[in-house]
Amino acid sequence: MTATLLTPEEISLLADQLPGWTVLGSKLQRQWKFKNFVDAFGFMSRVALLAESMHHHPDWSNVYSRVTIELTTHDLGGLSDQDVQLAQAINLLQPN
Amino acid sequence: MTATLLTPEEISLLADQLPGWTVLGSKLQRQWKFKNFVDAFGFMSRVALLAESMHHHPDWSNVYSRVTIELTTHDLGGLSDQDVQLAQAINLLQPN
Amino acid sequence: MTATLLTPEEISLLADQLPGWTVLGSKLQRQWKFKNFVDAFGFMSRVALLAESMHHHPDWSNVYSRVTIELTTHDLGGLSDQDVQLAQAINLLQPN
Amino acid sequence: MTATLLTPEEISLLADQLPGWTVLGSKLQRQWKFKNFVDAFGFMSRVALLAESMHHHPDWSNVYSRVTIELTTHDLGGLSDQDVQLAQAINLLQPN
Repeated sequence: MTATLLTPEEISLLADQLPGWTVLGSKLQRQWKFKNFVDAFGFMSRVALLAESMHHHPDWSNVYSRVTIELTTHDLGGLSDQDVQLAQAINLLQPN
Repeated sequence: MTATLLTPEEISLLADQLPGWTVLGSKLQRQWKFKNFVDAFGFMSRVALLAESMHHHPDWSNVYSRVTIELTTHDLGGLSDQDVQLAQAINLLQPN
Repeated sequence: MTATLLTPEEISLLADQLPGWTVLGSKLQRQWKFKNFVDAFGFMSRVALLAESMHHHPDWSNVYSRVTIELTTHDLGGLSDQDVQLAQAINLLQPN
Repeated sequence: MTATLLTPEEISLLADQLPGWTVLGSKLQRQWKFKNFVDAFGFMSRVALLAESMHHHPDWSNVYSRVTIELTTHDLGGLSDQDVQLAQAINLLQPN
């Protein structure tokens, strides 16, 4: 369960591994636009379940039908393998 | 916002209007099977938002990836237009 | 993570260990009554997060402000230590 | 259901009416700190239900146990009676 910081080389490969995500400094960021708030919050509920199960939680925000998720590993001050695993799990969710 | 009981004739037409739903006595029932609990609960969160917004709530249960929803109008002791409206709104949700 | 069936002796002690829960055959059951649907579903969301994190899920139902949770270990056909752990975690939630 | 912008005088009275909320320019803001993510997301689920029911949604963010809610009426470019009503409804939720 211990997180391991990614090397600069590993970070440079993330864009290919994680469709839709952008590396912004020490964070991974992705945005979603849903049909309405109901679909946006249904997605957030599924992400919440994944996050709690992985013991790794997003920095995220929502405005009506838009959801923005930022992933970073606060304890290590950068991107870790746990951020990649959560991003991959989120990408496997079928958007509504 | 007042609910109106359906006539026997209106009830006999429900099967055609509400794909997937079955009339069981004074209830409408439908079951869903999702990939896993995460998807099942994401669906439930969206249904909860619809229900609260409509001031009309389901009798429902969940076992892992399965969700069963029963709709009836307790106050009137039967099926009403509010059950039909909630069933239609649920049917418009894109399952995951 | 492997679940272990409880012995009859362990089951006989559950009532003391798990305030509010009742042993019904091979199930643990507890019911809650909240102020309204909003509070009931907020509680369900928290239970969902606990359950997914423990990889052990409830059989549960909701009617407006009432929530009924039944715990059993389907794979083993009876009550296991995982049911006890989930019941304890749920009891630690502060009801609204 | 039409929102009405608050007058400067009404805005000056908000601090007394809405314990915990701060007026920041054209927004109302409040932050919560919960015991953990489970309680934070349970709170968010309840707020989501209130918001959808009121057809008025927050700008909000979450980082683990912290939740920040900002309310404004985008369509009118300022604070309206709908922001006050949602803030009051959120304040009536019993925090976990």
